[in-house]
Amino acid sequence: MSFQEPIHDVAQLAMVELFTPKFEESLWFFHDVLGMTPTEDDGTSCYLRAYEDRYHHSLKLTRADHAGVGVVGWRAASPQALERRVAAIEASGRPGKWIEGHKGYGRAYEFTTPDGHKQHLFWEVEYFKPSAEQKSKLLSRPQKRPLRGVPVRRIDHINLFCSDVTKNAGFMQEHLGFQKRENVIFGGQDELACWLSVSPLVHEVAFTKDQAGPGNRLHHLAFWYGNQGQMLDLADILMEYDVRIEAGPAKHGVSQAYFMYVYEPGGNRIELFGDTGYLIFDPEWKTLTWTEENFFDGGGVWFGGELPQDFFVYGTPIVEAAAAAQAEAEAAVEPAE
Amino acid sequence: MSFQEPIHDVAQLAMVELFTPKFEESLWFFHDVLGMTPTEDDGTSCYLRAYEDRYHHSLKLTRADHAGVGVVGWRAASPQALERRVAAIEASGRPGKWIEGHKGYGRAYEFTTPDGHKQHLFWEVEYFKPSAEQKSKLLSRPQKRPLRGVPVRRIDHINLFCSDVTKNAGFMQEHLGFQKRENVIFGGQDELACWLSVSPLVHEVAFTKDQAGPGNRLHHLAFWYGNQGQMLDLADILMEYDVRIEAGPAKHGVSQAYFMYVYEPGGNRIELFGDTGYLIFDPEWKTLTWTEENFFDGGGVWFGGELPQDFFVYGTPIVEAAAAAQAEAEAAVEPAE
Amino acid sequence: MSFQEPIHDVAQLAMVELFTPKFEESLWFFHDVLGMTPTEDDGTSCYLRAYEDRYHHSLKLTRADHAGVGVVGWRAASPQALERRVAAIEASGRPGKWIEGHKGYGRAYEFTTPDGHKQHLFWEVEYFKPSAEQKSKLLSRPQKRPLRGVPVRRIDHINLFCSDVTKNAGFMQEHLGFQKRENVIFGGQDELACWLSVSPLVHEVAFTKDQAGPGNRLHHLAFWYGNQGQMLDLADILMEYDVRIEAGPAKHGVSQAYFMYVYEPGGNRIELFGDTGYLIFDPEWKTLTWTEENFFDGGGVWFGGELPQDFFVYGTPIVEAAAAAQAEAEAAVEPAE
Amino acid sequence: MSFQEPIHDVAQLAMVELFTPKFEESLWFFHDVLGMTPTEDDGTSCYLRAYEDRYHHSLKLTRADHAGVGVVGWRAASPQALERRVAAIEASGRPGKWIEGHKGYGRAYEFTTPDGHKQHLFWEVEYFKPSAEQKSKLLSRPQKRPLRGVPVRRIDHINLFCSDVTKNAGFMQEHLGFQKRENVIFGGQDELACWLSVSPLVHEVAFTKDQAGPGNRLHHLAFWYGNQGQMLDLADILMEYDVRIEAGPAKHGVSQAYFMYVYEPGGNRIELFGDTGYLIFDPEWKTLTWTEENFFDGGGVWFGGELPQDFFVYGTPIVEAAAAAQAEAEAAVEPAE
Repeated sequence: MSFQEPIHDVAQLAMVELFTPKFEESLWFFHDVLGMTPTEDDGTSCYLRAYEDRYHHSLKLTRADHAGVGVVGWRAASPQALERRVAAIEASGRPGKWIEGHKGYGRAYEFTTPDGHKQHLFWEVEYFKPSAEQKSKLLSRPQKRPLRGVPVRRIDHINLFCSDVTKNAGFMQEHLGFQKRENVIFGGQDELACWLSVSPLVHEVAFTKDQAGPGNRLHHLAFWYGNQGQMLDLADILMEYDVRIEAGPAKHGVSQAYFMYVYEPGGNRIELFGDTGYLIFDPEWKTLTWTEENFFDGGGVWFGGELPQDFFVYGTPIVEAAAAAQAEAEAAVEPAE
Repeated sequence: MSFQEPIHDVAQLAMVELFTPKFEESLWFFHDVLGMTPTEDDGTSCYLRAYEDRYHHSLKLTRADHAGVGVVGWRAASPQALERRVAAIEASGRPGKWIEGHKGYGRAYEFTTPDGHKQHLFWEVEYFKPSAEQKSKLLSRPQKRPLRGVPVRRIDHINLFCSDVTKNAGFMQEHLGFQKRENVIFGGQDELACWLSVSPLVHEVAFTKDQAGPGNRLHHLAFWYGNQGQMLDLADILMEYDVRIEAGPAKHGVSQAYFMYVYEPGGNRIELFGDTGYLIFDPEWKTLTWTEENFFDGGGVWFGGELPQDFFVYGTPIVEAAAAAQAEAEAAVEPAE
Repeated sequence: MSFQEPIHDVAQLAMVELFTPKFEESLWFFHDVLGMTPTEDDGTSCYLRAYEDRYHHSLKLTRADHAGVGVVGWRAASPQALERRVAAIEASGRPGKWIEGHKGYGRAYEFTTPDGHKQHLFWEVEYFKPSAEQKSKLLSRPQKRPLRGVPVRRIDHINLFCSDVTKNAGFMQEHLGFQKRENVIFGGQDELACWLSVSPLVHEVAFTKDQAGPGNRLHHLAFWYGNQGQMLDLADILMEYDVRIEAGPAKHGVSQAYFMYVYEPGGNRIELFGDTGYLIFDPEWKTLTWTEENFFDGGGVWFGGELPQDFFVYGTPIVEAAAAAQAEAEAAVEPAE
Repeated sequence: MSFQEPIHDVAQLAMVELFTPKFEESLWFFHDVLGMTPTEDDGTSCYLRAYEDRYHHSLKLTRADHAGVGVVGWRAASPQALERRVAAIEASGRPGKWIEGHKGYGRAYEFTTPDGHKQHLFWEVEYFKPSAEQKSKLLSRPQKRPLRGVPVRRIDHINLFCSDVTKNAGFMQEHLGFQKRENVIFGGQDELACWLSVSPLVHEVAFTKDQAGPGNRLHHLAFWYGNQGQMLDLADILMEYDVRIEAGPAKHGVSQAYFMYVYEPGGNRIELFGDTGYLIFDPEWKTLTWTEENFFDGGGVWFGGELPQDFFVYGTPIVEAAAAAQAEAEAAVEPAE
């Protein structure tokens, strides 16, 4: 029996840090429009959650000079799983170190993707505790659904711009147990994008070729509705309040996601994610590959309009700021000694 | 580190057999109304799939004297996983045996729940191969979406009536790796129902106390839309064509499912499953327990009307036929020799 | 040519006054949950609008000892139409008088239905003027869609409990030009309910037999979404915030409305109105009559659960307060001298 | 009192004839995909209805050499109204004549718009009579909702390409009683488009400047769902079955329509119309004018992607065929003698 059993050591995308140069406006977007609930603000960062997110935060919104992504936080499937993955990363030769004291979770292992995107992997988390007034009668809902905006339910996935899709994905596959569900390859050349998951979701992380920048940037962070109609309600509101919609509401062929991409006021691209698309339960799943031919005939957009050129080149930090950011990010992770 | 790591050996609910005493009418329901596609009919059974089901069939519709459920088919996560689970079942002392030659999958291990519901566990499956005309441009869709009825996308879960919820659930937890996500206990007494899964879904299988019958019956089989609006469209059609809707479209507190229960013409209760409710990614999930107090204040139905009395007592085979069926079912599984 | 041409003199249901004994809680409901915008509060009443209502207010929420309906305000189709209808009412012998100075509209003719429900008919209205911040880029939208709750778009219709359905409806038909679109008659006896309109809507006003009270009460006031999904979102929120849902979201056979009935905290039944049902353009429309047989087989509820007993007997003011209210209401309209 | 009272003599857009050079494929589209029901086929034309259309047909699909629109059929509001409108048209000096014997309606007055679009106005109609099997329990529904495709509910409106928007609209306003609800004027120049109605709908007819052709062409014919979700279902199916979607599903600012434009296989643009947008009840409605500035900031598309260039220039017959068609159409209406 030569079937390669999958690794189940990473449980979920738990928390992501975004940088914003327009903190108040970004907070308005996440709080008033997406209906997220702040847990605390330490002066540097405000910590927020969607109403069905279970932990201290799913979004760490950090005041900064430029937009972009900070730490991407993954929860391990068990304490043992955490140890196994750290051992694997260390064996890989990539630098990494244990860190302590981050708000919202305990001891974490910090490492980077080959491109330099900073990652934390941890087991211990701080659960959100609703006040009496916030408490929902729905046992599976950590707090009442808010009355603000069109509230998102939970964090879903992250899409990272990188200089080498295959290499970054390979690292996540080999050492963290992700499976490549779909990808895009034009003319038999380099992978342009791929979608990876550790669960039946099509992706918790995706990598997209950064054709306009140096890599190590954010393409987008996604929050989930699970519902088509709420996306239309949100689009209506975004138009009213002058938040830029880049594309959608529309349906991708890739992942079958009913999507909308918007720029939060700080400049980061946020995906709002409507219905679930499809879920993968088949253990023999083979990567689905879109080519130049079918990507433009249903793959990129199944219905609902084309993806604009910006979708393929815009990321944060924006290109001008990205070179500096790259240097910074690379300096931030020093090998454990 | 005492954290008990979960077992990932069962991948999915793959195929279920239903018995119908009104084959033509049942076939009309699954084919014309739910838009399922027949793979073949061997004179005894017709094999059908929802349009995003990937294998030879997800529903085996068998001509019979009475309604009810036949084999419940689970796909293992790997060949190794299949061996591990068979070893565990055998070690448990429950009878079981290997069988060969079932349409749609290879060598399978046949066993029963403590109540007697027949189960198959297998690794090898026959994939559905679309004709040129059936082939979809959507790579993740095994065939085009049909133009008939309001077509379901995939099989979702099964709910089994049983004489002892805890005992049946316990067997699936201990030997097959299911996790108990939610349950109902009134007055500190016996479990009335529970929902179990091997994936982020809240359930692939549920057990409900059979208060009116002998157990070993079907409560319902569920197919998935992933979409609220399609449920309303379907309800509209069911009313037009005189298919009985028992409850819904409405939202359960348990599982947050947007549901509708209907009786297919053969008498089996079918759940049509709208939006996904919630998904469980937290590896420390603890069973959510609904009690007499909160079950009737949002648990049974979060919104959309009450569950009628029938929901708690009707199952197939109907009670009159059930005693006979029970005897039959018990006789059907002989220990491997 | 004996075809009786319809009268087009009443343009629309424009404004309704509700009494509430729990003003703050009622205001929370209309403002925070239904997202209505207050225009002003004169200490006795707060005036509110849905975000696509065009005038000064569509709801006058009045502090009172008991729940119930005050003035029902209709806008005439033209100044000439107003004069014609006043002449017709005066010719009918029913008492009535001109009044001046009501907030939101000019000179109005005040009269009552045979049961005593107070009505105003007027031509001149005060239009809502949005502030710079409220102004929408959508030319047809008088203000931006609010970020609060699940906001309703406009007032839709009113349903009045009365002692004699046919008599009250007849008055509106004969003197105001309403057309009877659907009704309910059991066993060839008295009309139990009917739905009347002056436009392609199935109803701007309905009359329901008050079987538990003296008549001259409110059955419900309806606001419009035009959308199924928003009803499900609202239902979710109502459950969270303990607002009682009496029935729905579900679809009536009568009017094909996708409906939900809730009790605002002051006790008045409010209908939230999802999709439009159907519109009537056929000028030869004949009243559709539901009988005991088909009313309970799709008429009352096409899908989505039964109407509870309360739906047929509960109104405001509640029965205990209604006798007194009836006396008051009758005293309130004195014939013009 | 100088308020100009509106004319209520045209009740509705009842029936439209489309020409198709690919009859079988067009019939597949309207029958299998849009779920329309054929009434009869006389060898030249097939007559079809949406399931809530009340008359013999709403669509006359005619075999022809080229795509385009034939007769546009309006139902008068009464026999008297028909006479009044004919008198008005005749007084206007435009040619016209009475015709007899058209399938689906009685004596009709035939005339053309200034551009030459052929119109019929009539009072007597043949109602659709469902077979026992087609009969719905929903009294307001002329037949059961079909099980085919994503069935449309009724005809909604027509948009005509013309050489002079103001002139064509003016004719419909002055002589037929239409009201101009919205229009588009860039740079204070000629009207580019306008939307007219005789009911609370924003339009039963629209005129669009034919910038690429000679006018007297079809821009699109619209059918109504009244529902957002069904549009997404339909879009999914159209992609599967290779029907070209030109734009949408998306929301217009103009009319607030949730729309999708597709090319039926014969080449005619068909609009599928989701939710109702808004309804106009205000009798003092003033035309809303979109300019170059706001048309491209929410007017053309409120959300959901841009309108492609084709939307502004493509019509049927296609330009090459249009000159010939124009000559034909003009010859077809001879003044009554």
